[in-house]
Amino acid sequence: MMLETINQPSDLKRLSIGDLETLANEIRQFLIEKLAATGGHLAPNLGVVELTLALHYLFDSPKDKFIFDVGHQAYVHKMLTGRMHLFDTLRKYKGLCGFQKRSESEHDVWEAGHSSTSLSAAMGMAIARDLKGEQHQVIPIIGDGSLTGGMAFEALNHIGHEKKNMLVILNDNEMSIAPNVGALHNYLGKIRTDKHYKKAKEELDHLLKKIPAIGGTLAKTAERVRHSLKYLLVSGVLFEELGFTYFGPVDGHNLPQLIDTLKQAEKASGPVMVHVVTLKGKGYSHAEENSMIWHGLGTYKMESGEVVKSAGHPMYTDVFGQAIIELAENDERIIAVTPAMPSGSGLIKFGQRFPKRMIDVGIAEQHAATMCAALASEGMKPIFAVYSTFLQRAYDQVVHDICRQNLNVVFAIDRAGFVGPDGETHQGIYDIAFLRHIPNMVLMMPKDENELRHMLKTALDYEQGPIAVRYPRINGTGVVQDKVMQAIPIGTWEVVREGEGITVLAVGPMVQIAEEAALTLEAQGIKLQVINARFIKPLDENMLLKLSKEQTHIITMEEAALQGGFGSAVLEFYASKDIYGMQVKCLGIPDYYVEHGSIKEQRAEVDLTVENLIQQVKLMMPRKRQRALM
Amino acid sequence: MMLETINQPSDLKRLSIGDLETLANEIRQFLIEKLAATGGHLAPNLGVVELTLALHYLFDSPKDKFIFDVGHQAYVHKMLTGRMHLFDTLRKYKGLCGFQKRSESEHDVWEAGHSSTSLSAAMGMAIARDLKGEQHQVIPIIGDGSLTGGMAFEALNHIGHEKKNMLVILNDNEMSIAPNVGALHNYLGKIRTDKHYKKAKEELDHLLKKIPAIGGTLAKTAERVRHSLKYLLVSGVLFEELGFTYFGPVDGHNLPQLIDTLKQAEKASGPVMVHVVTLKGKGYSHAEENSMIWHGLGTYKMESGEVVKSAGHPMYTDVFGQAIIELAENDERIIAVTPAMPSGSGLIKFGQRFPKRMIDVGIAEQHAATMCAALASEGMKPIFAVYSTFLQRAYDQVVHDICRQNLNVVFAIDRAGFVGPDGETHQGIYDIAFLRHIPNMVLMMPKDENELRHMLKTALDYEQGPIAVRYPRINGTGVVQDKVMQAIPIGTWEVVREGEGITVLAVGPMVQIAEEAALTLEAQGIKLQVINARFIKPLDENMLLKLSKEQTHIITMEEAALQGGFGSAVLEFYASKDIYGMQVKCLGIPDYYVEHGSIKEQRAEVDLTVENLIQQVKLMMPRKRQRALM
Repeated sequence: MMLETINQPSDLKRLSIGDLETLANEIRQFLIEKLAATGGHLAPNLGVVELTLALHYLFDSPKDKFIFDVGHQAYVHKMLTGRMHLFDTLRKYKGLCGFQKRSESEHDVWEAGHSSTSLSAAMGMAIARDLKGEQHQVIPIIGDGSLTGGMAFEALNHIGHEKKNMLVILNDNEMSIAPNVGALHNYLGKIRTDKHYKKAKEELDHLLKKIPAIGGTLAKTAERVRHSLKYLLVSGVLFEELGFTYFGPVDGHNLPQLIDTLKQAEKASGPVMVHVVTLKGKGYSHAEENSMIWHGLGTYKMESGEVVKSAGHPMYTDVFGQAIIELAENDERIIAVTPAMPSGSGLIKFGQRFPKRMIDVGIAEQHAATMCAALASEGMKPIFAVYSTFLQRAYDQVVHDICRQNLNVVFAIDRAGFVGPDGETHQGIYDIAFLRHIPNMVLMMPKDENELRHMLKTALDYEQGPIAVRYPRINGTGVVQDKVMQAIPIGTWEVVREGEGITVLAVGPMVQIAEEAALTLEAQGIKLQVINARFIKPLDENMLLKLSKEQTHIITMEEAALQGGFGSAVLEFYASKDIYGMQVKCLGIPDYYVEHGSIKEQRAEVDLTVENLIQQVKLMMPRKRQRALM
Repeated sequence: MMLETINQPSDLKRLSIGDLETLANEIRQFLIEKLAATGGHLAPNLGVVELTLALHYLFDSPKDKFIFDVGHQAYVHKMLTGRMHLFDTLRKYKGLCGFQKRSESEHDVWEAGHSSTSLSAAMGMAIARDLKGEQHQVIPIIGDGSLTGGMAFEALNHIGHEKKNMLVILNDNEMSIAPNVGALHNYLGKIRTDKHYKKAKEELDHLLKKIPAIGGTLAKTAERVRHSLKYLLVSGVLFEELGFTYFGPVDGHNLPQLIDTLKQAEKASGPVMVHVVTLKGKGYSHAEENSMIWHGLGTYKMESGEVVKSAGHPMYTDVFGQAIIELAENDERIIAVTPAMPSGSGLIKFGQRFPKRMIDVGIAEQHAATMCAALASEGMKPIFAVYSTFLQRAYDQVVHDICRQNLNVVFAIDRAGFVGPDGETHQGIYDIAFLRHIPNMVLMMPKDENELRHMLKTALDYEQGPIAVRYPRINGTGVVQDKVMQAIPIGTWEVVREGEGITVLAVGPMVQIAEEAALTLEAQGIKLQVINARFIKPLDENMLLKLSKEQTHIITMEEAALQGGFGSAVLEFYASKDIYGMQVKCLGIPDYYVEHGSIKEQRAEVDLTVENLIQQVKLMMPRKRQRALM
């Protein structure tokens, strides 16, 4: 195996192009084998094997800065920078991170999990380089999907203006996770499919020489025509107009062509864009055929390409997808909006059933949110289906466009809470803290998948302003799902288990944990009251006042950041009512970034467990009861 | 006066072009006179007089939807839609809003104060229109500055793809508030200055006909050339490539030309972009000469154009601008980054002194934040100078790029707290709530302008991760400013006034209010303790523990949203330490959007006053003391 001889990027430099091609095959085989056992972002990485090899072959990492946009396509880069032996631990607890990670290697100079940040990062590094008088390349590698994110355009606009030396690799695979959409995508498609490009270029060179002969009086015009013709000679007129020198399109799986183009591009000064056309999933037929499924996935059988389905109860995502179809059958105003996540958000079937009422805007959360506001202003009922972590991108639009205008936008916030192997960049643990303080917002979380159905009905019936339901990236509890969805009165909680002395106010999946704890405690003679705090905002103030009159102690429990979270809201409420002396203990996620692992491991790390709840209850018990139990 | 005959847009329809021109002059005179007394966004509105007239002349508001990006250039629109008589109350408490406001008029179909939202809004309205089978125009009016905001590009990308009917007006005045920057700006400039455009177009038509004669074998190429030449015939190739039909550039102060072009544009199907070149401040020489000062301002003398300076102590903004120059003299790593606000952020002098270390990225907060992260990753010391309300746009970048990578970015958050006449869209009252829960963040607010200096030194010395200082849009207290800046130990508060029984934990300008209250109370025999809670995160835990041991009551006071705010942090701390029974009262801004007015009026509305603090102290006093005082 040639692969075994590669311990660092410099080991590549002595190889021939033929050797690199052999290596590319070995890398593909390695990834297909390893990921079958661990899961991970297979298709994106199969697409950049040659590209990553070419970059490490020509440039000198870490002196030259490789910035992988989104960062999940850095597996090959990790393999070439001394981390091949860690792939059995990929995305596992305390194992190899699925994204670039600065603490892992000096070759990881930047980290990302969200898209479209690489150009801004590159600009910062280029400015720093020039101010420090250093000499090196800055090389952001950005997909066509990521390029639709607004901040990527903000960066292009700045980079093109400042003319910093930079080598932008546009990794064009026509996909975000789903097929890419948008005018820019159409534009790239036009370039890509221009098969006569080379021939035309030669012919035009010929034509160009003839034009001055047409007539002296037209000399100025001829000059302008010559200028105009650069739009033909250089396909990437859009990027040229923005100040970039454009190279491409180049076949991203043709190593000689790729290396040749990169060598040319390297010589240009100012910002350069190399348009590399790649195939997501390249070299593994299953992934080539359906790169959406193979974008990022769990384990699979290597030979058959059979994806190992996680057994168990339905995912919240799927229950959401089914419920909104049912609701949309009876209400023409319902529209689903997704920022490039039709599959991940469970909207595929909705889109098939209501193609005109399903809008994929591309990776564009800001636009999506504000567009939803406008849809609502015109009487439609937009459902913005978005992952918690990506809704962060639209915080301002939620504050300024949706909530300030108090418009009827429904937020379906998926992946709320821990997300498992994607880790710290994707945790959906801040949405309570960043949504709760926004006026007019209503925020719910269901205790199980059946309640999710009712909450969606609640949200669509509400019509008094924005309303959000957050739900986790896990399987439901397996509860029976009611056929008929019914609205839940806004701001009401539910006592799911009577008790005395201590009450757990549990949010979402924490209800189940609290119920388990209560069951164990009951066997020990302690009757823990469990309340399903299904409305995070507004709180059930009557219930809270009742609890204070009963002088119960309270434990709040949420899979979200403690600071500014639900527990904090309960504390604020009592303070606002001048109710002092309540014992309120808040369980949630402390003030640090929780890394990748399973959701179970992540919960255990922050003590969101049945065991810890039992312990906290015992610690909190009124002394006389504690004594009685000793 | 023709102006007096215009009560609604339909009154325009019967006018001749000549009448409209007369009206334009009257509108200008009206605005220049009225705003001299009230202040407001003079220059932007002078720039769109003819444009607004032309739109209302040709289209039917509110059936046709006018969406003014940012919304501060809607004064003419307000005048033409029955609100002329309200201009004496412009931007005053309970008076006419300085932005589009849905509650004011059916002609205001959208609201904004932040930039770059109009295209997303237009897309939402266009989709709703088509789903409902309605027929009307959707007309977003967006400046070239706003077009640099990423979400505007997200919308362009989506609109160009979906081909919805829409009339985008690009109001190109080469400015955001400051001169516009960026590659797109350069591109527009190229189109604008193309004086030979019309002539060239004619000549090219001629040339075009000749090309097929050149040779039969080149037929295909000729076809391509013809296609290519559209880039000359249509200047806006960039927009054309994104799927728009481009018209322009057209002189935005030439009513016949403007009306003619809009009529043509209206006939085109799909998305259309009309590129209108305007002069900010048009018709008022002072504003034409310096549109940055005249963008938005207070009162002025109409004849002389003398801007009435607010007397008083130095503004925090200016103290910031001076301090960072001093700091940057001794540290080459310091770089100031502004998203199109060099003047508003007090950075003009810094930019003159250190032109290479001052970066204006345009309206691009997301890019700015992530670029700062990258600058820090390379050892620079970026200061991101940004208004609190606009930092909302970069929330995700703060979470994901800066804090998660724990990079040494300094945030200089201006306009924190109430902002006065700009009102609800611009209030800087959420930053505590949206920053406090982010791991690794340090957040400070100074009690006066001298402390601001020390805090900037603190921030630049810190070097253990991100650190932010927020400061208000007001004059300082007039305190003597220490020449030498000294770092303040992280997480320490300061007792500014000893007392007993009740302690006010005051943030920023609330310290002064608390001191005034304490002075009044002292005369009544009550000794209120006042603490300058200068670190919002981390809290001064030792101080908080000390207070709990002393069994003092606590009042927190902050000019920020109560939910998730500083008071909430104090409550969380005591709960986390199992310290129950403390009486903590939180004063701050309740859960609604506070509208325009003076900062004093806004504070009074939410009871952030000396009087209310005195009352709260008395209500909270231990009973025996209250009895003694009766």
